[in-house]
Amino acid sequence: MGLSYNEYYNERTGLTVGLKKVLFSEDTPFQKVEVYETDTWGNLMTIDGMVMLSEKDEFVYHEMLTHVGMFAHPNPKKVLIIGGGDGGTAREVMRHPSVERVDMVEIDEAVVRASKEFMPEVGDWDNPKLNVIYENGLEFVKTPKGEYDVVIIDGSDPVGPAVDLFKKEFYQNCYDCLNENGILTAQTESPWVGHYHKSISDLFDVLDEVFEVSQMYLAFIPLYPTGMWSLAYASKGINPHSEEVIKRVEEGTTKWQSSLRYYNKDMHTGSFAIPNFVQDILKSK
Amino acid sequence: MGLSYNEYYNERTGLTVGLKKVLFSEDTPFQKVEVYETDTWGNLMTIDGMVMLSEKDEFVYHEMLTHVGMFAHPNPKKVLIIGGGDGGTAREVMRHPSVERVDMVEIDEAVVRASKEFMPEVGDWDNPKLNVIYENGLEFVKTPKGEYDVVIIDGSDPVGPAVDLFKKEFYQNCYDCLNENGILTAQTESPWVGHYHKSISDLFDVLDEVFEVSQMYLAFIPLYPTGMWSLAYASKGINPHSEEVIKRVEEGTTKWQSSLRYYNKDMHTGSFAIPNFVQDILKSK
Repeated sequence: MGLSYNEYYNERTGLTVGLKKVLFSEDTPFQKVEVYETDTWGNLMTIDGMVMLSEKDEFVYHEMLTHVGMFAHPNPKKVLIIGGGDGGTAREVMRHPSVERVDMVEIDEAVVRASKEFMPEVGDWDNPKLNVIYENGLEFVKTPKGEYDVVIIDGSDPVGPAVDLFKKEFYQNCYDCLNENGILTAQTESPWVGHYHKSISDLFDVLDEVFEVSQMYLAFIPLYPTGMWSLAYASKGINPHSEEVIKRVEEGTTKWQSSLRYYNKDMHTGSFAIPNFVQDILKSK
Repeated sequence: MGLSYNEYYNERTGLTVGLKKVLFSEDTPFQKVEVYETDTWGNLMTIDGMVMLSEKDEFVYHEMLTHVGMFAHPNPKKVLIIGGGDGGTAREVMRHPSVERVDMVEIDEAVVRASKEFMPEVGDWDNPKLNVIYENGLEFVKTPKGEYDVVIIDGSDPVGPAVDLFKKEFYQNCYDCLNENGILTAQTESPWVGHYHKSISDLFDVLDEVFEVSQMYLAFIPLYPTGMWSLAYASKGINPHSEEVIKRVEEGTTKWQSSLRYYNKDMHTGSFAIPNFVQDILKSK
């Protein structure tokens, strides 16, 4: 009964969210951006009919996309975010005291505008370390060389404008943007959704080719299709399971304990456990 | 368009599954049991409008409910299952070569009948080790003393007939059914569903009181509400993270590798990593 949002990921299997009203709806030059007021998840943003975030569950995605890589790095100062227009990834990055500057390259200013208006708590927009650049991330990454400590790919799904975010040329450019301790993290879809299997498998093959270290990790995200979401960790050498990293995670999360809602030392390690059927997707060609 | 199954877990947020047809629908003396043919998940069973399993995703729940406890035990011979009428838990238990007998106590013969007819591959019904008893599990557990190596609670949600499966008396009786190395596992709902928080918190308090060891672990189950499902491990002393257990898991899963689709050594350990917001639920009173 009443207004609802429906996202089908597998023929007619999908998610239904009860809505109170439509807050924002705009056909931008790139995509359709919408924000809804929901019954129990706060405000919800979708792009081209796919959930990007809700105010209630965004902490999982943003903490896991950010801290696994940020804590693995010994001293992240300069961070590049591709996408991330809702501001949540930059917010988590800037909580690391070593960070001096965040370049957030978002293709679509409407995403930022809608987020600032309808989910203002998600971003830390007035932080002077944040530098928002409205540009195509695919183009942006062609120029910087060895400039960033961490690159985070916070793009949408591999359909429409984001499809090339899953290709080798883009990841090679990201690699070249990173300095010698460089780390990259990215969102890489749900292993339960059949039509993404090839994207996932190809993407991890690319990361294997381009980076010295690459591994999948997982997070429980209730409003993303199937609730199981995969992410990628890649680096020029830093192993996310080294004693040094684990010590840093332990110290950092102890300090931050009261403000982290998902990420902790056990999740840092445990999220890299991959079920057999997902390992099979990674091995498939 | 067309027939669909809808389960709302949080006001009007929920799961939608496309259906081809209704295969079975019966108001039993205990509950409403239904089986549907779905578009992409094989056949799906629901009880009182809550998904119990689909043929495509049942392996996650059954492997995780079973093997975490079964591998932790050095030599499980006699196993008690409370509920589990679809047969999947017994199937996984009987793959452990040490097992001599499984007593499966299911209150509702209609669940077994529907499973045998419409999801025959889920159960291993002809296995001579399997002893199906149609009885109320709450009553059954009052009698045996020190008889079982492992007890598995495979009941439905804490509403209707299963509500007492979340109470102390029941768990004390289960404890008494177990011999000195005894281990218990149970399904314990989604931490994302607000109206189950108290059940979850109370249940783990009870396990803490009754058992020497008790811990939560998690599994990704796409057709259960939110996709994040919690389970309980409890024992009279065996630590699921001991070197001996991990060695046994490693040896066992290596032998079984080709037939396990979710559970492996990393998942055994990683599934015990608990996000901060879930730890907060466990600490709440």
